[in-house]
Amino acid sequence: MITSTKNPQIKHLRSLLTNRKDRRSERLFVIEGVRLVEEAFQAQAEIAILVYNREQLTLTERGAALIEQFVGLAQAYEVAPEVLQAVSDTVTPQGVVAAVRWPELESPMYGVVLVLDALQDPGNVGTLLRSAVATGIGQVICTVGTADVYSPKVARAAMGAHFRLAIAQDVSWDDAPLMLSTTDNVYAAVAEASMPYYAADWRQPSALIVGNEANGVSAAGLEIATKQIAIPMAPGVESLNAAVAGSVILFEMQRQRKLGRS
Amino acid sequence: MITSTKNPQIKHLRSLLTNRKDRRSERLFVIEGVRLVEEAFQAQAEIAILVYNREQLTLTERGAALIEQFVGLAQAYEVAPEVLQAVSDTVTPQGVVAAVRWPELESPMYGVVLVLDALQDPGNVGTLLRSAVATGIGQVICTVGTADVYSPKVARAAMGAHFRLAIAQDVSWDDAPLMLSTTDNVYAAVAEASMPYYAADWRQPSALIVGNEANGVSAAGLEIATKQIAIPMAPGVESLNAAVAGSVILFEMQRQRKLGRS
Repeated sequence: MITSTKNPQIKHLRSLLTNRKDRRSERLFVIEGVRLVEEAFQAQAEIAILVYNREQLTLTERGAALIEQFVGLAQAYEVAPEVLQAVSDTVTPQGVVAAVRWPELESPMYGVVLVLDALQDPGNVGTLLRSAVATGIGQVICTVGTADVYSPKVARAAMGAHFRLAIAQDVSWDDAPLMLSTTDNVYAAVAEASMPYYAADWRQPSALIVGNEANGVSAAGLEIATKQIAIPMAPGVESLNAAVAGSVILFEMQRQRKLGRS
Repeated sequence: MITSTKNPQIKHLRSLLTNRKDRRSERLFVIEGVRLVEEAFQAQAEIAILVYNREQLTLTERGAALIEQFVGLAQAYEVAPEVLQAVSDTVTPQGVVAAVRWPELESPMYGVVLVLDALQDPGNVGTLLRSAVATGIGQVICTVGTADVYSPKVARAAMGAHFRLAIAQDVSWDDAPLMLSTTDNVYAAVAEASMPYYAADWRQPSALIVGNEANGVSAAGLEIATKQIAIPMAPGVESLNAAVAGSVILFEMQRQRKLGRS
């Protein structure tokens, strides 16, 4: 059992937890908790390091069942509670933390592409990844300036979406048009537009650009968009949270695809 | 200018910021930042105490304009930056904090009622209040166990929704049926139900029950509900964030009301 936070594996995990550069050069990210680690195993993701505390994990049946999955894995280390805390991004760790290879899923050839245009809040980014998966989207493009999709906060809010989406990050708006070339319908979600989001025909291959919390969709994003859409709101309401706004549009897309257009 | 955090007004504000009991006995809550205080003035809410730092507020035009609104108000006190920090719930205060009387808006006689059934996360509660206002809902019922709607975190996420909604809190499920007696359509949002949320006819007077993050709608809530609805999701996706799920349904309601039903 590892009892020192100076252990090299623990130092390695900590560097991945706190340092974007290290995550990027090694193409690893840190996930935490029973549910996320379950998802990683289900997706057959490559586990680089896994640390756990048996006592904490066996508090729940689901945690105990998870131990069976990594017992015997050379990269799995049992650690003391204080060591687990040192590699955790949460106040009350759930007994397991792992560094996992960035999944590389292939972009689907059709469907809707979600573009996060310099979205800054990690919670918003994670929530939108989760909504993207829930609505059957296969591809997400994050432009330069978007919160690191592999940060612990995004991973927590995304709840395993990383294992089900083709995610391109640090995409410059110079390259994005090429990535969006399979669709004629590029919608930018803006605060004010005459076209409501539900007037779009989401059964067509399309892309949805969700912009930065304070500044909205960038000038480059607006230029590439073929149409601007808005979420109609009661008079006097200034704006919606970006994650809520993006999710509302994604679920309308899904509704249309399931029902045929209204 | 108040320079001591021991000043009685400051101590009073602090007690309202941190203590639910004090908020409740005085029927006051604390709001922070230019935008929220603007909303309070617009709504002609009763301001009990207002503290501000001129230097911080005049950094923006909007802040400078706001000062004009409360200059001469007996309850307005200029304070030192460290005093403002002491009554702020945020890391970087925006220069103005106020204790405001709980607004008492009348419940509309028709429309959709949103019921928060022991929703625990203040961010989720605030986000749903904001979505309720944006979709034209007039009445929100919070059952016992829901996060304090007048807590600083809820106030921040709700972005002024408190001044536009009739909010009943601490409602017991024994009393809720009476409050819902004007509608025959009480929908409980659950993880699994055969009826998708968009199959409901939201143009009819209705109520929507959104449940606790971990446990969903309570047994009492399910009993009162006339129908259970779910948000269809891609296979393998466990659940949505409660604020996103509730918002998606509220905006579908609004879409139907604007368009006629699909």
